Amino acid sequence: MNQQSSTVREHSTRGSYVTGGDFNRDTNYIEDRITKNGEAGLNGEPGWPVERGRYRLVAARACPWANRTVIVRRLLGLEDAISLGQPGPTHDARSWTFDLDPGGKDPVLGIKRLQEAYFRRFPDYPRGITVPALVDIASGAVVTNNFPQITLDFSTEWTAFHRPGAPRLYPEHLRGEIDRVNKRVFTEVNNGVYRCGFAGSQEAYDAAYARLWAALDWLEDRLADQRYLVGGSITEADVRLFTTLVRFDAVYHGHFKCNRNKLSEMPHLWAYARDLFQTPGFGDTIDFVQIKQHYYIVHEDINPTGIVPAGPELSGWLTPHGRESLNGSPFGEGTPPGPVRAGEQVSPGHGAG
Amino acid sequence: MNQQSSTVREHSTRGSYVTGGDFNRDTNYIEDRITKNGEAGLNGEPGWPVERGRYRLVAARACPWANRTVIVRRLLGLEDAISLGQPGPTHDARSWTFDLDPGGKDPVLGIKRLQEAYFRRFPDYPRGITVPALVDIASGAVVTNNFPQITLDFSTEWTAFHRPGAPRLYPEHLRGEIDRVNKRVFTEVNNGVYRCGFAGSQEAYDAAYARLWAALDWLEDRLADQRYLVGGSITEADVRLFTTLVRFDAVYHGHFKCNRNKLSEMPHLWAYARDLFQTPGFGDTIDFVQIKQHYYIVHEDINPTGIVPAGPELSGWLTPHGRESLNGSPFGEGTPPGPVRAGEQVSPGHGAG
Repeated sequence: MNQQSSTVREHSTRGSYVTGGDFNRDTNYIEDRITKNGEAGLNGEPGWPVERGRYRLVAARACPWANRTVIVRRLLGLEDAISLGQPGPTHDARSWTFDLDPGGKDPVLGIKRLQEAYFRRFPDYPRGITVPALVDIASGAVVTNNFPQITLDFSTEWTAFHRPGAPRLYPEHLRGEIDRVNKRVFTEVNNGVYRCGFAGSQEAYDAAYARLWAALDWLEDRLADQRYLVGGSITEADVRLFTTLVRFDAVYHGHFKCNRNKLSEMPHLWAYARDLFQTPGFGDTIDFVQIKQHYYIVHEDINPTGIVPAGPELSGWLTPHGRESLNGSPFGEGTPPGPVRAGEQVSPGHGAG
Repeated sequence: MNQQSSTVREHSTRGSYVTGGDFNRDTNYIEDRITKNGEAGLNGEPGWPVERGRYRLVAARACPWANRTVIVRRLLGLEDAISLGQPGPTHDARSWTFDLDPGGKDPVLGIKRLQEAYFRRFPDYPRGITVPALVDIASGAVVTNNFPQITLDFSTEWTAFHRPGAPRLYPEHLRGEIDRVNKRVFTEVNNGVYRCGFAGSQEAYDAAYARLWAALDWLEDRLADQRYLVGGSITEADVRLFTTLVRFDAVYHGHFKCNRNKLSEMPHLWAYARDLFQTPGFGDTIDFVQIKQHYYIVHEDINPTGIVPAGPELSGWLTPHGRESLNGSPFGEGTPPGPVRAGEQVSPGHGAG
């Protein structure tokens, strides 16, 4: 399970390693920013200018961290500004690959492996080949794979390209609270499920399990009488929680042994997740087939047979959630995004229908 | 996964092998019978006489096939007639072991490994060292490990030692129907979960999954308006289904990928299982800790980390089931068994409480 010994670490689709039985996520990324005028970041991160058509977002449907970017891009209507490349659900020891595209090549970048775009940026790039990544199309080089920043920059730096009616996912007056919630959700939930699944000892697993469920109980309680995590509309915080919740029963419950109960056994959290799923921009980005294939096929260490479970039954995602009676409306003063564009729809039979 | 190459086959605690991706249970056992006067069986199986104190039942709590014998022995009140030896939940490649007993030895048989009792019967015994096994205490040799026959003989051959009020688990007028139900439950459910878990290919798994759920849907329907599987009281058929159902959410759902839904998501089957669980003789034989340890630690091929999940939450087993309103009473004209005897109780914290 020790990923440090391999040249490319992308267990769980992210660089990671295990020390003393505990799973640790490698949080070193290419931290360049894409900003309004190409200004550098606050800590001197190199800046690149926002520009329609200049960058390609590479985001596998399977990956929860990449899923965030696909949702936010769609909610904000950035499809015309930033194109989307989609690696397949499984990857080999070296890289995510464009195996779903004709000829196994991304049609815009012309590469078979995402690794090539990392190597164009740094010829001896030593870290995990991760999604999401934003690639400068002209040079073919990765600009950034710093996933927590990418969606925030979509909200705050790419405003010139937002669609009319785009929601405010990271409004200034709520940033403190969003950041606090995001921090706990990241360490305890988004990453917490991986901490369970990749624990290197029974002791580490038991501790990880306790942390995860403490956080899920906190969320169940928090969402009992408010429709969204922060404020009265969907924010970045909801996007970040959703991508873990939507994978919970399909993958984390069994594969990662997060099995105190299913998400569907937590009334408020399950209704909240369904509410988001049924909101344009969320459920229409979810490919359960790719999600299950990714985890069950890639993680040979914990599922050596590579057999992908046929369950769970998914139709519950489309059942009434009853959350309309709580305060709040999904897009605030904005509007829902329109239909998913051609070429970006989830394949028939891969959703919850 | 091919168990034929090892000298002792006991994957899934039973001899088994995989051919063409399909899991096959080795159904060759030591078929001696213990009968009223030591008569041979109908097919010439050697007969041994029923006799108080002569035989020891070796039955690991973890194993569903052994669990049947522990339940039936208790329902019928055979504890004084047949003593109980209990191997621990895990076993090595060669044998179940008495690692929970002082000194790691069964206090009556004086052996560390059940294998020794098989070798005393057949020095070159080539098949799986399985539980349940009935051992002739004086010679230390296994008499039979033919599990489907053992419980029937408890009901029909050991009648002289039944407690007052013992239920009729295999009454003559219902045997045809019980046999028919048992056959389908065995191939599709008891063994069906293993067929999912040990499938050697995606295709074999998918087929096994479809067979399993067809059978569970049939049972859900059958139990919608009748309290027990056959007739108006508990029979052998209920015992055989129960030992699989009680392990379903704790093990088969995740570990064996039987995950269309949890048992607790099938209203009638879940209420039926709780009804039995709460009936003296059933739930009081169930050690969830040992059950989970057994599957998750022994099956290195499908859970190489050996980490045992902390879930699921089990308190639901003790919730009201509402089945009293259906026709039927658990023990018919008989009575429930008394308390579990000293030395045979499930350890504190290992049950559903």
